[in-house]
Amino acid sequence: MENFTFHNPTKIVFGTGNLPSIGEETKLYGKKALLVYGKQSIKKLGVYDRVVEALQNAGIEIVEHAGVKPNPVLSHAREGVDKCKNSNIDVIVAAGGGSVIDEAKSIAAGAVSDADVWDFFLQKETIKKALPLITVLTMPATGTEMNGSMVVTNEDTQEKMGHVSHPLHPKVSFLDPSLTYSIPKDTTAHACTDMIAHLVEGYFNSMEEFAPVVDGYIEGIIRGIMKSTDRVMEKPDDYDARANIMWGATLAWNGIGQRGFKGAYIPCHMLEHPLSGIYDIAHGAGLSMMIPAWLKYKKEAVRHRIEMFGRNVLGLDESKTDLADATIEALENWYRKIGTPVTFQEAGIEEPDYDALTKQAEFLSDYMGVPGYTTEDMKKIYQLADEKNM
Amino acid sequence: MENFTFHNPTKIVFGTGNLPSIGEETKLYGKKALLVYGKQSIKKLGVYDRVVEALQNAGIEIVEHAGVKPNPVLSHAREGVDKCKNSNIDVIVAAGGGSVIDEAKSIAAGAVSDADVWDFFLQKETIKKALPLITVLTMPATGTEMNGSMVVTNEDTQEKMGHVSHPLHPKVSFLDPSLTYSIPKDTTAHACTDMIAHLVEGYFNSMEEFAPVVDGYIEGIIRGIMKSTDRVMEKPDDYDARANIMWGATLAWNGIGQRGFKGAYIPCHMLEHPLSGIYDIAHGAGLSMMIPAWLKYKKEAVRHRIEMFGRNVLGLDESKTDLADATIEALENWYRKIGTPVTFQEAGIEEPDYDALTKQAEFLSDYMGVPGYTTEDMKKIYQLADEKNM
Repeated sequence: MENFTFHNPTKIVFGTGNLPSIGEETKLYGKKALLVYGKQSIKKLGVYDRVVEALQNAGIEIVEHAGVKPNPVLSHAREGVDKCKNSNIDVIVAAGGGSVIDEAKSIAAGAVSDADVWDFFLQKETIKKALPLITVLTMPATGTEMNGSMVVTNEDTQEKMGHVSHPLHPKVSFLDPSLTYSIPKDTTAHACTDMIAHLVEGYFNSMEEFAPVVDGYIEGIIRGIMKSTDRVMEKPDDYDARANIMWGATLAWNGIGQRGFKGAYIPCHMLEHPLSGIYDIAHGAGLSMMIPAWLKYKKEAVRHRIEMFGRNVLGLDESKTDLADATIEALENWYRKIGTPVTFQEAGIEEPDYDALTKQAEFLSDYMGVPGYTTEDMKKIYQLADEKNM
Repeated sequence: MENFTFHNPTKIVFGTGNLPSIGEETKLYGKKALLVYGKQSIKKLGVYDRVVEALQNAGIEIVEHAGVKPNPVLSHAREGVDKCKNSNIDVIVAAGGGSVIDEAKSIAAGAVSDADVWDFFLQKETIKKALPLITVLTMPATGTEMNGSMVVTNEDTQEKMGHVSHPLHPKVSFLDPSLTYSIPKDTTAHACTDMIAHLVEGYFNSMEEFAPVVDGYIEGIIRGIMKSTDRVMEKPDDYDARANIMWGATLAWNGIGQRGFKGAYIPCHMLEHPLSGIYDIAHGAGLSMMIPAWLKYKKEAVRHRIEMFGRNVLGLDESKTDLADATIEALENWYRKIGTPVTFQEAGIEEPDYDALTKQAEFLSDYMGVPGYTTEDMKKIYQLADEKNM
């Protein structure tokens, strides 16, 4: 096992009916809060009213910062930073999905720095501290509620950049599964694909000869997420299934499943970003295309790990003629069953532009630190998701 | 899933060669440290020299508190508290096994309180704060390196009591698997049995209808610990196997595997404590006797969970005539294989004193909050570990 440091101080308040305590939790960090959210969804869910009431009951003054976009943009984050500085904000409360929390993180860092927010993403400035952040999650997928990651888009340069820094960990995150009942089936499928991808990228890439505790962690949580996804597809308001998905998303990307592995890169994320960027498909939809394609390309190199996944996650039988092939096929079938595409054509992309895709992936290879993929490798992987080559 | 709060702020520095950084980590919390340890083992391992050198290099003044016993005693903890108060200690550094860290926790709490340390265990006083604690773990088993628990024995009253409190979480814990190479086989077997017990108690007791993510977490980590134990029994200085056991012990009792389950009691721990108390056997040895006995007693009530364990952890075949029986037998065989007893007689107890055992277990039932066991139930479970009844 590789040496590692694990430090995740975020407090999780999990379950239903806990939102009133957000007032007391926030009060520990100050008297004046910036309330960050998107548009109407938290009002429809009743989250807005409950959070505002709880904060007011705790004597906290609220400054609103609404209008976070689904892909949060830099200009809006900068506005939030200005509000914090002009209004002497003590603490940030973010209610919404991953985008809202990510923008809130960038504001939290910018508010206590003289640097421009974008300089953190460009690695020109280090985040040494940030305003305390309290979150209410309404859309489980990215794990941002319990990690130090954020992604923001600079509209001027069209760059979508990510950054990870310890001070960005939320102080407290409220996870109420009943808030996720109304997430549509396709969005749920894409979110579950994303959380599974967070775990399998390291798992399949691992060069560890022996790491059964980390392997077991990953296998167990993926198995749980898959079972829960199946159940939610039948019954969207199944509390326990929604709860397992929500907690599974957090455990998938809070650092545990990524620690101890040698060379745990994220090539499928690298290959996916150009897809969702160029074709405007969901990130999860791109991942359900790229993961099987990548597995086919790497089959012989990582055969023993694919087979282990087949046995321990999918429950496949040793006696299969080619257990690795059977595993990839079973995973593809599961993606199709929950309604997320496996091929370009299933995603409505009849003629993929390989040059445009590989050009972006080449840039990301460096930016995301994924070594070992030539342009030709990337193209071949993309081609394995194209029905014309099947 | 049950509502829960999860908050574990301990920073883990995992791997080999990291000990020199303990100076810088400690310096963040003060200039004067109480160094808590047992007897010779950390000197033999070279830990003592490395820690002292690192602390001195960081300009930290050291006050020594050696001589922690394998079951830490109250009088020695009180001495430590006095040293902290008399020497204006800022931070505690504990190097050793669970006992050393547990006593250090009690000292950390006592040092900043006017109350006597024992009053925390008697629930007469609440721990509101504690001195910061940095640990170097040399014996993975109890998970104390990443939780808020401690156990101390009051020699005057012969009471061994536990207490859990959030401020007792270590600030930083150093986990170096290479320090555990010299742990003897039997001690390793008992330690691994203990960490597995921390996970299976909730798993088998869970009344959740659907919690596959938590189930998967538990199953995956136990599978990893079992594989690693098998390997260590063959090769005690296998770094990766020791590393997986060390990280597995931490993940087994850091709170994640215990969250979200309804009614996750610890009856096997309740039944074990009198065993190791009266017969002076290892805690892990008592657990490898009590877990199969308890499973036999509860077989029909928790059959579906025993079968799930058989399939997902032990890899047993569905086609077994009675999968629950086969699971219990396979677990017993595994315990025997690693060298920890399954029956009273295997532990050298020819004539168990059922009255004495049940009397103590009755007391613990209340103290440990394990409801639903009559004296008769307890006796029957104990009898299922007695070869005379097989």
